[in-house]
Amino acid sequence: MAAVCILDEFEVHKNEKFLKIAEELKPELHETVIRPEKLLQFKRHLKVERKPDMHETVVREEAYEELAKKQFKKDDQIVLDFGNHQVGYVTMKLSAAGSHQDAPAYIYLKFAERPEELEADPAQYDGWISKGWLQEEYIHVDTLPAEVKLPRRYAFRYMELKVIDVSMKFSLVVDDVSVRAVSAVREEDVPPLEIGDPLLEKIDRVAIHTLQNCMQDVFEDGPKRDRRLWLGDLRLQARANYQTFKNYDLVKRCLYLFGGMTFNEGKVSACLFTEPQLDPDDTYLFDYALLYSSALLDYYEETYDEEALKDLYPVAIRQIEIGLGYLTEDGVIPDHSNEFWCFADWGEGLNTQAASLAILIYSLRYCINLAKHMKDAECVQRMSVWEEKLKKSAVDHYWDEEQQLFVSGEERQVSWATQIWMILARVFPKEKNRELILHTIDVNPRIQMVTPYMYHHYIDALIRSGEKERAIDEIKKYWGEMVHDGADTFWEVYNPYNKYESPYGSLMVNSFCHAWSCTPTYFLRKFYTGGREEE
Amino acid sequence: MAAVCILDEFEVHKNEKFLKIAEELKPELHETVIRPEKLLQFKRHLKVERKPDMHETVVREEAYEELAKKQFKKDDQIVLDFGNHQVGYVTMKLSAAGSHQDAPAYIYLKFAERPEELEADPAQYDGWISKGWLQEEYIHVDTLPAEVKLPRRYAFRYMELKVIDVSMKFSLVVDDVSVRAVSAVREEDVPPLEIGDPLLEKIDRVAIHTLQNCMQDVFEDGPKRDRRLWLGDLRLQARANYQTFKNYDLVKRCLYLFGGMTFNEGKVSACLFTEPQLDPDDTYLFDYALLYSSALLDYYEETYDEEALKDLYPVAIRQIEIGLGYLTEDGVIPDHSNEFWCFADWGEGLNTQAASLAILIYSLRYCINLAKHMKDAECVQRMSVWEEKLKKSAVDHYWDEEQQLFVSGEERQVSWATQIWMILARVFPKEKNRELILHTIDVNPRIQMVTPYMYHHYIDALIRSGEKERAIDEIKKYWGEMVHDGADTFWEVYNPYNKYESPYGSLMVNSFCHAWSCTPTYFLRKFYTGGREEE
Repeated sequence: MAAVCILDEFEVHKNEKFLKIAEELKPELHETVIRPEKLLQFKRHLKVERKPDMHETVVREEAYEELAKKQFKKDDQIVLDFGNHQVGYVTMKLSAAGSHQDAPAYIYLKFAERPEELEADPAQYDGWISKGWLQEEYIHVDTLPAEVKLPRRYAFRYMELKVIDVSMKFSLVVDDVSVRAVSAVREEDVPPLEIGDPLLEKIDRVAIHTLQNCMQDVFEDGPKRDRRLWLGDLRLQARANYQTFKNYDLVKRCLYLFGGMTFNEGKVSACLFTEPQLDPDDTYLFDYALLYSSALLDYYEETYDEEALKDLYPVAIRQIEIGLGYLTEDGVIPDHSNEFWCFADWGEGLNTQAASLAILIYSLRYCINLAKHMKDAECVQRMSVWEEKLKKSAVDHYWDEEQQLFVSGEERQVSWATQIWMILARVFPKEKNRELILHTIDVNPRIQMVTPYMYHHYIDALIRSGEKERAIDEIKKYWGEMVHDGADTFWEVYNPYNKYESPYGSLMVNSFCHAWSCTPTYFLRKFYTGGREEE
Repeated sequence: MAAVCILDEFEVHKNEKFLKIAEELKPELHETVIRPEKLLQFKRHLKVERKPDMHETVVREEAYEELAKKQFKKDDQIVLDFGNHQVGYVTMKLSAAGSHQDAPAYIYLKFAERPEELEADPAQYDGWISKGWLQEEYIHVDTLPAEVKLPRRYAFRYMELKVIDVSMKFSLVVDDVSVRAVSAVREEDVPPLEIGDPLLEKIDRVAIHTLQNCMQDVFEDGPKRDRRLWLGDLRLQARANYQTFKNYDLVKRCLYLFGGMTFNEGKVSACLFTEPQLDPDDTYLFDYALLYSSALLDYYEETYDEEALKDLYPVAIRQIEIGLGYLTEDGVIPDHSNEFWCFADWGEGLNTQAASLAILIYSLRYCINLAKHMKDAECVQRMSVWEEKLKKSAVDHYWDEEQQLFVSGEERQVSWATQIWMILARVFPKEKNRELILHTIDVNPRIQMVTPYMYHHYIDALIRSGEKERAIDEIKKYWGEMVHDGADTFWEVYNPYNKYESPYGSLMVNSFCHAWSCTPTYFLRKFYTGGREEE
């Protein structure tokens, strides 16, 4: 399913004051030079792209120190394993052996977060997003020895080097390879989680590594792709960040960036560009825009930053008003719209009509709390009326008494996403929410969750329904299974029923270090360490 | 036929004084910014690599000004025609149309001297020299707009740009493309040849353009490949240069470079590297080394540079002595040797045994003249004895009275190359040489000439045998045919009987602007303008 949003009418409003504040909060990145741990040789270009177990395909393993002793001829290749997921800039020191170099050395490089990417053949790529995201380079080195500093940033653990050609008179020697890894934060600054469960502690470490590698100039969704600030990712990253790095400035910067670049009637964009200059994308995601209020309240309650609250409160309120504006006379969000897209999850065929209403209700609660902090009694009053009215509408329109589940859309679709958002919207009281989530688990609707983004909300719903033990089991089952599958960082998409699913038509462009997947550290540290109870 | 020379024992002797003189003569390159003239669309990747007529395959032609109006999507491509052969550095100004760029633009570039290179598919390349010579690049542009300055130098008239991918949200716009063309000389400084024959005047212009584009930091053999100083090419380039640019410093620089980097027993290398530092190649070509004496005498007779003569005379003499050292007791050069290779021409199956002896005799004459200038009577005497002795040996061993032709090697092969070098060696008196060349033309030996390098010596042999009119006819037939085939510069290899022959296993790596092909301007300007007679 190709899913892009292109707005014909797109009028950007920049708030220079906000953008200046954001600019001043731009982080200096920490840099760490890292070298490969091992050399691997893989079986090549397996016909089947989905290959669950890399260990089957590693033919040979050697110490990194062996690299400089090798002399590469035409078609020779090697995979450098950096031992963990890295985001940064690669430098290679190359030289020649044999006679004097008498032709350009022609080299192919591929950077891979996962072994599956190494095994896949880029020539076979037929996804609907740009092939430009494949981390591959063709490089000519006219003069050896050379220090080749690759100018682009890569996200990877594995680096494949293949000699397309040298000449009959000389061989290529790879004397050294290193990556200057970058991030706005350092994971060694976060004290380890001590929770007495090795798997959960491992999940926490992987989550923090994921978050670290996504915290760059802004909170990126994924350092491999799209390398951009997405609002939905930001909200979850910020939550994880509050429990770990506590880098409040980067959150503040991003909230000001969204607030400082609205479009048309004041909408916040689903994502922003920082290069070549600051610009919003012409993508409006209904749910992401509404959740700005949640991200702002979270930030305020962590920092009590009154200035930011005062500046950005109108932006948050505006998103709610725009959301309310889409309501039909019946008090629901239309099933289809040319104007917006409610993301919710990447699940194939997921109908998001009911979830849209639930997310609006959920966001109203955050909005009301923001209004309380702002002592904006009129807004508290007005939004509280809406909240109650829409909760009633949700039950009236979408609750299926017979199935004891919420349905969505004309075809009355039952999905995990709809139940979860209705629970988080607190359409029912806590005990009934608990019954609903347990019943959902029991029924296991055909329309599954496929992203850690949706799983985050599932875990949240379990905890908010008093099912903390089950929540921890589900974290272990879902994120723990990714760890079992060798995740160094958590993936953008992970469907336990179809592990190599891609929303883009090819696994090759999936992001395997993805911001929205880092939240186990948030849950574990917030709800399972200090004995803090759910709100 | 793969033909490379790798010496196991290779001891380099650098003469720092000579290398310092050479360094001080390093030219500043002239730079000219040139833009494409036209946009072309070609039929793609024809199955057959040999496609003689580009006009058949151009589907569409537009003015360059149309370029910036185009919006390129995935798989779109265009060919920019710069109107003439260029050597230089390309800059592209790129931008995006549509929504904000949301993925790297991934672009493929191919630089081609000839349309045949555009039509050929690099994936099919299976020549025996490095694929690194193919002038292609894969480029990711992460941020648009961008000025992309390609760091490598290309030799081309055509530049293909293909969009591997952009995204569904934006298109690529190519706002501007230019090449900063470089050379040590400027062809506009050479007065046009006025000889009353449009074809010869065109041949002269193409020859001068060829020479200009090969005159860089040193005299290069070809600016596409090998981009190096080869001794055999230098000798012919210098001759053309004396009649045109008269850049004596560049010749002097190159003679000192060869003299300043000998190896083993004092051999001059067949070619030199100037990067990453000055180094000789471990290739000894028997004929090239001997012809150093010819190159030095030519230079001295143009400049009367006594210092250079004094410095470099011992180098020239040493090459002759080394050549004489290979003689068998019978006074011939062995048919096969592991120690050296006599190049002569790229003809398939050419036996060079007899030509080796002829080139030794030819070089002795230059050596004797150098010795005369040096007033080295002992050397004049000694070498004159050798010259006479070897002329006799040549006739005794290789003259076939019945065929009235020279033969070569065990199989007594008759080739053009052998006859021509025997004529240039003046083994026979002038009138008999004339008979021999006419008889050779008549017989038309099966082992043809395939390079302009060999054709140069053929033209030289005609002129030296008093066949000036026939020489001009042959220039028109051979180089004129290349002009007819659309040559902007003269080619490395041109066999009129097999126009798309390649000594490397693929036309794609043939050099189509090649130093040794520029000598028509030498002949036309030296022998056909001022009424100067042959020596």
